[in-house]
Amino acid sequence: MNEERMQKFFNHPEHIVDEVIESFSMCYSAVVSKTNCSRTLKYKFAPCEKKVGVVCGGGFGHDPAFMGYIGKDMVHAVAIGDLFSPPSIEAFCEAFSQADSGNGVVCIIGNYPLDIIAARDAVKISGQNGIDVRIIIVNEDVGTEEKALRIGSTGEVFAWKIAGAASALGYDISKVEEVVSRAVSRMRSIGIGLSSCIIPEVGRQNYIIERGTMEIGVGHHGLSSMDTLKLRPADDVADMILDYLLADMPIAEGESVSVMVSGLGNTMLSELYLLGGRVCKMLASKGITPAQVLVGNFFTSLDMMGATLSLLHLDSEIESLLKHLSYPVAFSQFSPEPFDKT
Amino acid sequence: MNEERMQKFFNHPEHIVDEVIESFSMCYSAVVSKTNCSRTLKYKFAPCEKKVGVVCGGGFGHDPAFMGYIGKDMVHAVAIGDLFSPPSIEAFCEAFSQADSGNGVVCIIGNYPLDIIAARDAVKISGQNGIDVRIIIVNEDVGTEEKALRIGSTGEVFAWKIAGAASALGYDISKVEEVVSRAVSRMRSIGIGLSSCIIPEVGRQNYIIERGTMEIGVGHHGLSSMDTLKLRPADDVADMILDYLLADMPIAEGESVSVMVSGLGNTMLSELYLLGGRVCKMLASKGITPAQVLVGNFFTSLDMMGATLSLLHLDSEIESLLKHLSYPVAFSQFSPEPFDKT
Repeated sequence: MNEERMQKFFNHPEHIVDEVIESFSMCYSAVVSKTNCSRTLKYKFAPCEKKVGVVCGGGFGHDPAFMGYIGKDMVHAVAIGDLFSPPSIEAFCEAFSQADSGNGVVCIIGNYPLDIIAARDAVKISGQNGIDVRIIIVNEDVGTEEKALRIGSTGEVFAWKIAGAASALGYDISKVEEVVSRAVSRMRSIGIGLSSCIIPEVGRQNYIIERGTMEIGVGHHGLSSMDTLKLRPADDVADMILDYLLADMPIAEGESVSVMVSGLGNTMLSELYLLGGRVCKMLASKGITPAQVLVGNFFTSLDMMGATLSLLHLDSEIESLLKHLSYPVAFSQFSPEPFDKT
Repeated sequence: MNEERMQKFFNHPEHIVDEVIESFSMCYSAVVSKTNCSRTLKYKFAPCEKKVGVVCGGGFGHDPAFMGYIGKDMVHAVAIGDLFSPPSIEAFCEAFSQADSGNGVVCIIGNYPLDIIAARDAVKISGQNGIDVRIIIVNEDVGTEEKALRIGSTGEVFAWKIAGAASALGYDISKVEEVVSRAVSRMRSIGIGLSSCIIPEVGRQNYIIERGTMEIGVGHHGLSSMDTLKLRPADDVADMILDYLLADMPIAEGESVSVMVSGLGNTMLSELYLLGGRVCKMLASKGITPAQVLVGNFFTSLDMMGATLSLLHLDSEIESLLKHLSYPVAFSQFSPEPFDKT
């Protein structure tokens, strides 16, 4: 560990994952509960009677993902790994068990081989206990040329939202699985990195992005970008990344999309608004309607500077599910759950 | 202007205020509208029939404040100044005019002399046009010893929320004014700075916070702290700032508070959770109930590193207003307004 204290509000950086999970569950004790596994958190009122359970999970370091999406009509349980590392089989098993009301569980995770292995092993064990779990893998990030290797990034948030809404509306497990899988096939994301992140345990960045440059197609762990380019004005960046997405997933004039612009951590909201506004303008110029625009920090990579653009090509069912009111704790400070259930 | 391009998603840093306002209103065109003044934005459905108008405003650089709080049952119009500078009289006049349904307007702003002068001049002009505007000044930040000089910071968010809820519930202007003023007298905030912010137009920080130190009582423009101390673990920082607030506003055992932990810009959510969790634990140990805990980036100072802790001493009316469902655009990505009014 670094001798010098990092310029951060940390206690013991080597225990940051457990400390943050504990603190988070204290802050949001009205909505979030601990479980039998220290790396699994659940929605306080899960399992939700007659509803399909919604589970997500992945490595730590992406706040507010994953635990911030726990809440009414959204995520029922999360499995959390070490920093940028897969959750354990045990954490997934506990999440499935806590989320299942007897109507099955969808487990929506990114396309990371180790996460998938852990989730599949947990599905087998849970199956022996009579829980029907369907894994849905999100792989919408075009930052990798080879499609089979594409990871999931901010698009996962769309998938959780749609699953939570479908579950709340009483869809059965096969229908939830179908609509979420369809949504995944209709979304694309790309990340741009302006700086890498500081790894808390070691106190320094995992690699360096040179000033004046940007990494195109950067992953959520700050690694393996497609290209390093000279940093350009925000409008040019927005145009470029929008073109990348539309080249991979052409969208016809007259169609509608949901747009998500997420910061990677240390990017100001005003920068994200600049990117989002330009994307809306360019979409409109192509005859595509940005029917819903989400700007904020939805899926970060510690204190990385940069942003992710995601597009979800809407159909009427997906659009109505996205417009359903959900209450993820990290985004419900001003619209707390509408009724007490204790 | 700096020759080198800043490591940010900017276009023309010298025009950042107007560019961000334009981009923001494009992203959120479903809820936010432009007005006759380029520095005034309004809730699309304002003025709201039979309801008291809620206006806020201040200098640019505090995203999501002020414009991010526009939305159903929250803020109806905002007046935006240049970076860290007061809004113009014209911007306030337009905000009052857009927010007024004939039932008067409350204008809730921080205790900054130039902002107050502009708002008061606008109140006079608007009064001649038959609009009854009541100014409520928020001055809850204990970072200044002399009480008359105390500024408003994150506590303003509580005040807007309470005003928006009271307005939505049909309170008349005097009742809105009374409950918001009461809430202001029952809140305290304090900021801790770990780094200053980069001023976009000049491309560098306005002053330097040395590594390994922290500024206690730092203002939202990064200036004039009470003290510089050695940086300590997050738990110690939380204990210290909580004690500062409770020394200034004693709260008896058995009472309840709302807790807000806001990042100042480039602080990770996980750091804020650590602070928030510790504050909850210490409040509980003192027999004080943290009845509502809000953790996020509510009122920032560009890309400053640091956090603000706010406490609002609840009474039953204030608590029920805080639990009313409101829809500020910056926090309603997953719970969009529940019905279309177009």
